[in-house]
Amino acid sequence: MKKLTVSLEHCSYPIYIGTDLLAKLPVYLQEAGITPQQKLMVISDSNVAPLYCSPILEALRQAGYQVGIEVVPAGEASKNLNQLEKLIGSCLQFGLDRQGVILALGGGVIGDLAGFVAASYMRGIRFVQIPTTLLAHDSSVGGKVGVNHALGKNVIGAFHQPALVLYDVGTLATLPKRELISGFAEVIKHGLIWDQAFVDWLAKEATDLLALHPEKLAEAIYHGCQVKVGVVSQDERESGIRAILNYGHTIGHALEAVSGYSYYTHGEAVAIGIAGAVQLSCNRFGLDQEIVRVTTELLASFGLPTTYEAGRFTEQALLEAMKRDKKVKNDQYTFVLTRKLGQVEVVRGIDENEIRDVLRGLEGR
Amino acid sequence: MKKLTVSLEHCSYPIYIGTDLLAKLPVYLQEAGITPQQKLMVISDSNVAPLYCSPILEALRQAGYQVGIEVVPAGEASKNLNQLEKLIGSCLQFGLDRQGVILALGGGVIGDLAGFVAASYMRGIRFVQIPTTLLAHDSSVGGKVGVNHALGKNVIGAFHQPALVLYDVGTLATLPKRELISGFAEVIKHGLIWDQAFVDWLAKEATDLLALHPEKLAEAIYHGCQVKVGVVSQDERESGIRAILNYGHTIGHALEAVSGYSYYTHGEAVAIGIAGAVQLSCNRFGLDQEIVRVTTELLASFGLPTTYEAGRFTEQALLEAMKRDKKVKNDQYTFVLTRKLGQVEVVRGIDENEIRDVLRGLEGR
Repeated sequence: MKKLTVSLEHCSYPIYIGTDLLAKLPVYLQEAGITPQQKLMVISDSNVAPLYCSPILEALRQAGYQVGIEVVPAGEASKNLNQLEKLIGSCLQFGLDRQGVILALGGGVIGDLAGFVAASYMRGIRFVQIPTTLLAHDSSVGGKVGVNHALGKNVIGAFHQPALVLYDVGTLATLPKRELISGFAEVIKHGLIWDQAFVDWLAKEATDLLALHPEKLAEAIYHGCQVKVGVVSQDERESGIRAILNYGHTIGHALEAVSGYSYYTHGEAVAIGIAGAVQLSCNRFGLDQEIVRVTTELLASFGLPTTYEAGRFTEQALLEAMKRDKKVKNDQYTFVLTRKLGQVEVVRGIDENEIRDVLRGLEGR
Repeated sequence: MKKLTVSLEHCSYPIYIGTDLLAKLPVYLQEAGITPQQKLMVISDSNVAPLYCSPILEALRQAGYQVGIEVVPAGEASKNLNQLEKLIGSCLQFGLDRQGVILALGGGVIGDLAGFVAASYMRGIRFVQIPTTLLAHDSSVGGKVGVNHALGKNVIGAFHQPALVLYDVGTLATLPKRELISGFAEVIKHGLIWDQAFVDWLAKEATDLLALHPEKLAEAIYHGCQVKVGVVSQDERESGIRAILNYGHTIGHALEAVSGYSYYTHGEAVAIGIAGAVQLSCNRFGLDQEIVRVTTELLASFGLPTTYEAGRFTEQALLEAMKRDKKVKNDQYTFVLTRKLGQVEVVRGIDENEIRDVLRGLEGR
């Protein structure tokens, strides 16, 4: 079992990564000061709940906890204010008070949704992240929670840090292949923005990682989380360096938005966005085209896309979606761009024509 | 013009109270570091907007600000997640970015709703409180924002401090009488929990205050805000002493909830709740019944109710509404009780029968 600690200005919390951790949930709760006097509400989704809810509920009840459970339909479409309202109603009916704790059991959608329930319920109660996807290694760390609006992804939310993150890599065995692959996009991103040695290691271990080698998976998640923790600890509320975590996300979010958040997974959209960002970096900084090759080949070796289907979206629609993005400041496009492998920087004031060039190059055949 | 400063751990902000302040809004914005490079979104309601929006918009536009405006139906019913979703959509369409600022122009409902838009839009942007009711002297200070759920008042929200509060007492001249009177409930509450001299002054000045004497009104608001600021500065997130601000609110909130938030104004419900709390204090601490007389007479001298209509609500319904209240901890009822005029304390573990006794006494004939 590996442990990482996130140290922020007003709180710090542990991330546990390993195998067979779910059964020990009550122990970790107690360590975080969450006692059986506090009511717990588990929020999960229709894919994850049937797999892991019973053993968790049993362990918690045996330890003396009063536990409620709410299950939402799996998928990004559940990340909306209607679900928030329903879940808050359930918490009220269950009698959850301000000492109560929300347990988010699932992937990024559940972490974001349940985390925002915790952030807004009675103006904020504690919550625990129990990620069950690879992608959630990213979203479960850092305290960003929220839901989508019809006009934009994650535009309604809060910064609300979990009390603890419990990452049982055993849960990844039940992930559909496409979701697993999608999760590697953020793992790879963490290497590309911060740690060249980790990039090299990922390239070498791609096959074993896709085959779910448990120690190597834990290692990959640990390093991915470590990058995230390093960045978030320096900038909890995204006023500076944290923006580099959006590498690949400017185009990625736009792709998700124009396709109604259903055609591409988040990881696939980010992978295409990374391919765009590295090409834009080459064009702007005059880098050797070799860095584009290495980056896209790494993504491809994990089965991730690096182009989007020609004719599926117009450049104009993508540009407009980018404009609605939270990172836009005074109508200027902002990108995270590569300086070299393992090092990026935030660049503002990117010209629309530079982006159009890159988008044209991302159209696959 | 009077100025108060709220000093909290991570921020501090000014409250300006006086006459003819609205026209100088651009000056106060600049002082708070809000420049014409930042887009502004005014959120107001259908009662207030026709009275004050044009002059404010004109002043802001002349000063070079880009300003959007959204008007919601007046009344507590607008404080819900549907309105939040609509307003967030409007902010997105207006192109408000993370540097944008929300201006909450109206009473407590607008402050709470617009404040929660600001708290949750892109995970938090700045906002300015421009209260136009007397009641808002309370709600505009302290950073509590949020909306209602069908099962509970203010159960979805955040702590989000404004960048500044601009209180033009001239706006109170257009308040309906019932709302003005309702606002005095919280002014009186601030005296009763903190400042006996202020209680005496209020008893003496009731007639002039109800006649809207501008200097005396500003004085009353200043003192009311001062109490609130004093309490909030010690306890921003309601973990301790701040709970005394809920004096009269345990029963008050229950009355509002069982009557669908429409029969009593908030201030009327709080006034009845104060009458209940002071009686409960007498019963529990063996105080002289005189303190009940002084308290209820003060409320009555401002035209506020101190009993509720017999037969309108059952004790059981009121008790159940109290149980759903945010202040309930491990199923125990909590009340703020009077020790003497101008001094209260939080008391937990109040027995259901004690409450039933008091509720019976609150039934008017």
